[in-house]
Amino acid sequence: MSILEIVSKVNMTEETWNESLECHSIIPDKFDGITYYRVVKKVEQLKKGAVVTDSGIIYDFPRIARILHLENGIKLAFNNPFYVEEKIDGYNVRIAKIQDQVLAFTRGSYVCPFSTDRLVDFFDSDSFFKENPDLIVCGEIAGPENPYNGESPPYVTEDISFFAFDIKTKNSDQQISIEKRYKLFDEYQIPSVTRFGRYTSSDIKDLKKQIQGLDEKGCEGLVFKPTDPTEKTVKYVTVGSCLRDMKITSSLMIEYQAEFFTHRMLRSLFYLLEHRSNLDDTFLKKTGEALLQPLFESVKKVAGGEVITERFKVRFNKEQNIKKLFEHFHKCKVDANLIHQEKVGQYWHVEFVRRCFPSYEVIKKHWDGHSHFD
Amino acid sequence: MSILEIVSKVNMTEETWNESLECHSIIPDKFDGITYYRVVKKVEQLKKGAVVTDSGIIYDFPRIARILHLENGIKLAFNNPFYVEEKIDGYNVRIAKIQDQVLAFTRGSYVCPFSTDRLVDFFDSDSFFKENPDLIVCGEIAGPENPYNGESPPYVTEDISFFAFDIKTKNSDQQISIEKRYKLFDEYQIPSVTRFGRYTSSDIKDLKKQIQGLDEKGCEGLVFKPTDPTEKTVKYVTVGSCLRDMKITSSLMIEYQAEFFTHRMLRSLFYLLEHRSNLDDTFLKKTGEALLQPLFESVKKVAGGEVITERFKVRFNKEQNIKKLFEHFHKCKVDANLIHQEKVGQYWHVEFVRRCFPSYEVIKKHWDGHSHFD
Repeated sequence: MSILEIVSKVNMTEETWNESLECHSIIPDKFDGITYYRVVKKVEQLKKGAVVTDSGIIYDFPRIARILHLENGIKLAFNNPFYVEEKIDGYNVRIAKIQDQVLAFTRGSYVCPFSTDRLVDFFDSDSFFKENPDLIVCGEIAGPENPYNGESPPYVTEDISFFAFDIKTKNSDQQISIEKRYKLFDEYQIPSVTRFGRYTSSDIKDLKKQIQGLDEKGCEGLVFKPTDPTEKTVKYVTVGSCLRDMKITSSLMIEYQAEFFTHRMLRSLFYLLEHRSNLDDTFLKKTGEALLQPLFESVKKVAGGEVITERFKVRFNKEQNIKKLFEHFHKCKVDANLIHQEKVGQYWHVEFVRRCFPSYEVIKKHWDGHSHFD
Repeated sequence: MSILEIVSKVNMTEETWNESLECHSIIPDKFDGITYYRVVKKVEQLKKGAVVTDSGIIYDFPRIARILHLENGIKLAFNNPFYVEEKIDGYNVRIAKIQDQVLAFTRGSYVCPFSTDRLVDFFDSDSFFKENPDLIVCGEIAGPENPYNGESPPYVTEDISFFAFDIKTKNSDQQISIEKRYKLFDEYQIPSVTRFGRYTSSDIKDLKKQIQGLDEKGCEGLVFKPTDPTEKTVKYVTVGSCLRDMKITSSLMIEYQAEFFTHRMLRSLFYLLEHRSNLDDTFLKKTGEALLQPLFESVKKVAGGEVITERFKVRFNKEQNIKKLFEHFHKCKVDANLIHQEKVGQYWHVEFVRRCFPSYEVIKKHWDGHSHFD
């Protein structure tokens, strides 16, 4: 189908389409010979993150509202039953068949060469998309060997795993029903996030136990999904996940939004207060450590003349996709440099280093004695 | 002199003056029958914070550039000798004679009724301004019993004290020379900030000792003032001051800029690294405590149905000025309520409570279970 026919399905005129391209609200990109269009600024009903292809539109993956108080949040959000799933710390992908290829799109609407390379390890996408060409499988890729995220679930101890959690249809922002979704996940053996089942807001005692169990194991949190489509999905995270978030990012505190840290401090205190844990010396020390120690190491590095870097390891099936990942980084203005690549068994094992210039430059200026106004 | 004659001294036309009033860049206000004009948005050379009166223009008090590395900062800032003074944690006032009254203006360009009431306790302003009607005495009011600032120097153990540090001339943004300034402070017995004397950048060892001494005593830091007018004033603070800043404000973390906290974390690490102190467990715990404990108490309060408040004690000479302080708070949209006032000896002792609604409302919404996007 032509792109204009595709966008006419969401009532976009040829004029609007052409204008959007001209003013760079929608940007064409290419992967393996397939042209796709990245929505980088809202155009009519297409929001940032959506992807337009000649096989249909993949809507943006919506942000999920957060609650800071589990009991009150659940009671306020749900009058009807809801499903509870584990929230996993990784990065979001939307997997869809475009022309004759299955591609994984990032939240930023790029095709991710790494994720796309590894799809074959996740589930039998050929048979799934042959029978369901209009569906989009949404999920999290998580594990210690991923190219983006410094955190990973405690039970993925090497490489990465895929955890599906949603199925959407092309040209629509709607999800298919949870029951149907679970059925498809099971039918096609698509690995999915841990399902805790169907709850009502009177099951709060049980939910508290679940979240406390996840916290003890080092997991991120829970997502609550309504059965009543007028109610909304909400998320809730463990105190441990707040601490880990701070620890993993504080080396680059300067280039993060400062709210990233203050929000997590507040969240952790809400968790402690609701779950009757104490704000004890151990927690205070751990928070101080999470916030300061990695940043201290960054300052020390820069003071010693070194650039701040982050080291990543990833595994690829196909050698040619390694180069594509670095092209992707280049497009996203990520300064990543290949250190080593080697075929070990089934996979190409790749090591690369990301240089974190924004943090480096600010710290270096301060260290060199430049004054600033704050 | 008429206001138009006054502003013509800074080359402002009648048209610009009238426009500025119309578009509220300059706002008229009144204190004790004296009309003054607050610059709230830059108009030509008059910046936010400047005050226009029929006795002349009081320029804004300029922000001072900060260095994070003492040695490198001093070496970069100064090729010529500079004076070193203590930086004091209080609030800034500009004291000037307008018509026949001596008034204290806040950084926000209001007449501060409290500070103005207490001027008589600071120095003999009658004789100073009789002989120097065009001068403006700039300084810090600091101490545990002030109506604005939660911190105070360790050596002001009750009430407040005034510490002059600059003298400016009306209708000019220039300071008078440091030597002349010190002479005037001494001649009129105007209490001023601790002067450490004249240094050059080769005296860095000595300066490090000074700052470490201040840190041990619980003082805020140092200000470095050039003798060469082409060089600029810079400031440098102790690690202890960073910790105290965080501790005193974190109960209201939500209504502060998040950078307030991340900047202080970075500053404290720079201090520790330069002065070869360790980032030890005690410091990590203290930082965690400073950031979390007061915020935890705020969340607990709101969870228990209480509003977050801050309690202040202040002393006044004249009873009628108490009411004026509350009128001032009302204008500044500060929700302050008088709790108690009583004449004890020379002073009216006043207690009031500030209710911190922005923090309260955000915490309350979260606690009640409302979801949000972040």
